[in-house]
Amino acid sequence: MKKLTIEEKNYIAGFLDGDGSIFAQIVRGSDYKYNFRIRVSIGFYQKKNKHWFMLKLKKLLGGYGSLRIRKDEVSELVVSGTGPVKEILSQLKNSLILKKKNASLILKIIEKKRKVNSKTEFIEVCKLVDKVAELNYSKNRKITSETVKQSLIEK
Amino acid sequence: MKKLTIEEKNYIAGFLDGDGSIFAQIVRGSDYKYNFRIRVSIGFYQKKNKHWFMLKLKKLLGGYGSLRIRKDEVSELVVSGTGPVKEILSQLKNSLILKKKNASLILKIIEKKRKVNSKTEFIEVCKLVDKVAELNYSKNRKITSETVKQSLIEK
Repeated sequence: MKKLTIEEKNYIAGFLDGDGSIFAQIVRGSDYKYNFRIRVSIGFYQKKNKHWFMLKLKKLLGGYGSLRIRKDEVSELVVSGTGPVKEILSQLKNSLILKKKNASLILKIIEKKRKVNSKTEFIEVCKLVDKVAELNYSKNRKITSETVKQSLIEK
Repeated sequence: MKKLTIEEKNYIAGFLDGDGSIFAQIVRGSDYKYNFRIRVSIGFYQKKNKHWFMLKLKKLLGGYGSLRIRKDEVSELVVSGTGPVKEILSQLKNSLILKKKNASLILKIIEKKRKVNSKTEFIEVCKLVDKVAELNYSKNRKITSETVKQSLIEK
């Protein structure tokens, strides 16, 4: 991904603050060391007729992410994965206002999760995921740090 | 209103493109020369808990506009009026992407409406208002250039 200009950084930060999302999820999977893994993502959304813009945005963000038109006619660009998310947020962080805290937390999660060396440490990172969800007022979360804790302690 | 920095311009443009609105309305009133007048506006919206940010934004935009928390828990900043809207859009125009056309049209409306000298000319400006509404996919418009035309021709 190329280095964004001051104009691009601030525009994208404003756009993300206005209508985007910076989030983390705990995903279950039997082949993961701790039964779960953590997925970090950045989401951008616009009405279908603005799809041309989303293509442009995707290109600007290094081509990362998956861009699709949802059934509800929303064009959605979701960038997931430690590498791309870290690269993007590192560039946008200082320009964000509303979602600056989310960005910092996600960068912290990325940093911590690669150093995890025990169940306890993994659960600690999951607690940071809970924090991001709180900032986002996420409803309908099924897997929280508590779910992970109970799963790992039972074993 | 102070001159915005490059960072502020681009951030606000991104924010407005993401979740804001640039619009014009034809408003009826018995004391208007042509039975109607044209109101131009810029709107910004966020959830209630982001009201602190909207206060900040209002200040940045020269203190113009009316900021309130709506019954549906949305914090809404609407700047109306030729002077303030022209001042703000002139600064943001080149940084906008999605709403650049809207901004140009609104600036054109502002320019033209002060020079209006006949019913026909007024109706022409109302047609530009229709164009902005099209760009915005506005539904439920009650007063269009057609309404104005019929009202002025009847007299």
